[in-house]
Amino acid sequence: MAEILILGAGVMGSALTVPAADNGHRITLAATPKDHAILKALESDAGAHPRLGAPISPAVRVVDAAAISPHEAQAADLVVVGVSTPGIPWAAAELARLRPTGTLALVTKGLVANPGSVPFTFADALPELVASHGVPVPRNLVGIGGPCIAREVAERRPSATIYGSANIAAARHAKELLEAPYYRVSVSEDAVGLEACAALKNFFAIGVSSMLSRHQRDGVSLKNPLAAAFQQALDEMAVLAEWLGGTRQTAYGLAGVGDLHVTVGGGRNSRLGKFLGEGMTVKEALTGPLAGETVEGVDVGRVLAPYLNTSEDGLDPAQFPLAAALTSAIVDGGELHYEAASSAQHLYRRVEASGTETAK
Amino acid sequence: MAEILILGAGVMGSALTVPAADNGHRITLAATPKDHAILKALESDAGAHPRLGAPISPAVRVVDAAAISPHEAQAADLVVVGVSTPGIPWAAAELARLRPTGTLALVTKGLVANPGSVPFTFADALPELVASHGVPVPRNLVGIGGPCIAREVAERRPSATIYGSANIAAARHAKELLEAPYYRVSVSEDAVGLEACAALKNFFAIGVSSMLSRHQRDGVSLKNPLAAAFQQALDEMAVLAEWLGGTRQTAYGLAGVGDLHVTVGGGRNSRLGKFLGEGMTVKEALTGPLAGETVEGVDVGRVLAPYLNTSEDGLDPAQFPLAAALTSAIVDGGELHYEAASSAQHLYRRVEASGTETAK
Repeated sequence: MAEILILGAGVMGSALTVPAADNGHRITLAATPKDHAILKALESDAGAHPRLGAPISPAVRVVDAAAISPHEAQAADLVVVGVSTPGIPWAAAELARLRPTGTLALVTKGLVANPGSVPFTFADALPELVASHGVPVPRNLVGIGGPCIAREVAERRPSATIYGSANIAAARHAKELLEAPYYRVSVSEDAVGLEACAALKNFFAIGVSSMLSRHQRDGVSLKNPLAAAFQQALDEMAVLAEWLGGTRQTAYGLAGVGDLHVTVGGGRNSRLGKFLGEGMTVKEALTGPLAGETVEGVDVGRVLAPYLNTSEDGLDPAQFPLAAALTSAIVDGGELHYEAASSAQHLYRRVEASGTETAK
Repeated sequence: MAEILILGAGVMGSALTVPAADNGHRITLAATPKDHAILKALESDAGAHPRLGAPISPAVRVVDAAAISPHEAQAADLVVVGVSTPGIPWAAAELARLRPTGTLALVTKGLVANPGSVPFTFADALPELVASHGVPVPRNLVGIGGPCIAREVAERRPSATIYGSANIAAARHAKELLEAPYYRVSVSEDAVGLEACAALKNFFAIGVSSMLSRHQRDGVSLKNPLAAAFQQALDEMAVLAEWLGGTRQTAYGLAGVGDLHVTVGGGRNSRLGKFLGEGMTVKEALTGPLAGETVEGVDVGRVLAPYLNTSEDGLDPAQFPLAAALTSAIVDGGELHYEAASSAQHLYRRVEASGTETAK
């Protein structure tokens, strides 16, 4: 039995308590200042998470994070950061206060602007942010990626996920603690590539999902345009993952293909895409049906946009037709100008340049 | 303007007349002995293809293949073999009779048993079959793959496809003649890999589609099990494509990811998968709701089965959990015993062995 501390009682942090509890560990689920409604609900009933849609184990100890002491945190074998993107500064401050010594895993995904160089993934940004509080940089961060809808994990539905760490032993340690028959964990040394894909899939899911509504027959989505856009997204993701410091192959695994697969058709990024496919502008969608919602792919697009709009040291928009169309629509608040089939060959030009099997 | 001869008036052969006609070519659509109903329908009305669901151009000349002379066939810049799998012997005999000299392209997909070695793809089997009639082996066959539902091509919906040939100039020639704004063609030198993926995707679509019915909530398919199985199928397909003589990377492009994407959720292979996901046996499905239908993935499974059931010189079933479960069900006529998440990590063991980024 191990001690596991989860910072953040949102859907994914809470869902991970299910395999952790099934493995017999002692679990503390620590609510952030934004989680007070969740904390209240779970304190009275472990089945009543307001957003998860499935019960967690009554054995899980649910507390306000402020009540956790450094001594307690340092006794944890595994600390999981389970906040949403806006919670990252809070999580960094908490990690600086608590200074955990066990394996540190991260559920949160996004890209962070880094003027003068390529954007950071959270695999780099979070440790730096913790260190900015004057404590040592946490090492061996484990990124949690792959196709896992939190509710389905909490319902013990068969799910395959991937943990990435530059220190593969840390990834294996997290796997050992959390893997369950219905929650299988692969491991990778490419933490940066995994974090890159996990962020990029939200962004690209907007574009792929636009095909669900743009090309229909009798109200049913057509398949060729969707498949063409899915492939285009995947191949652009692979090149961007490499540009961000990871390897292309990671995009063709659970962190890329798999996670893009679950993200298209569900969630806020996909909803935005469907509105764009109907001809709505980004501004109309974000101030209308999606008003007040965090659409993570939009934030990723904002970070990428400057690189696609510069002639020097940037990304050639002609090589990233889907990313370029998405960033333009996001920056201008406008319509998405992307036609599924018209750009698919660009990726093969790129693949050819890298020396693999295809040629134009 | 070029001369294009299409052998077979089935859905894909007929659909290809649409971009060909839009490009201004002179097209002959030649009906096989099994296409007589189609021939009759098209002769009276080009909009009345009984299975395509969309009109072809009235400028297309529709004839009985028996009426084509070798002289005519040899005047064609491009000959497309558009028959279904059972029509391949007929097509080989016709090619031996007609001895076309232009570029030869192939729509038909499947694997052919080859005792003592790995199965042939049609990229190898068709030329051999033609040569068995005592004529020279046709060279430079172009395989047509990628995510293209015929009806959507005929409706001019955005579609991305891939042509593969060991002679890249032949693939480029076919692309030049058929590419249209709504029908974009990438090219690849990996004809064998493309043909392998095109056949394997039918087989794996059975397994992936079983998740659509096996794991649901309130009648809606869950996403984690589907994504886990999609990834598993893809990674097994990549290794099998290499085993069959192609390259792994081809599976991660339009011939693999893209084509698997359109195949899951539509068509007979997917319907079989959904029946299996509901607990039906292969025998019950094939003698019940699918009686009389050709389910191409089943034939592929029969060809693969011996390799997964031998201890020597075969494929280790532990490394191909989805393919092994599918071939067992197909050979025995039984149920599909495959659980989405439980085997996903096998693929990472394989990836590790190949020296790329992931490790168990």
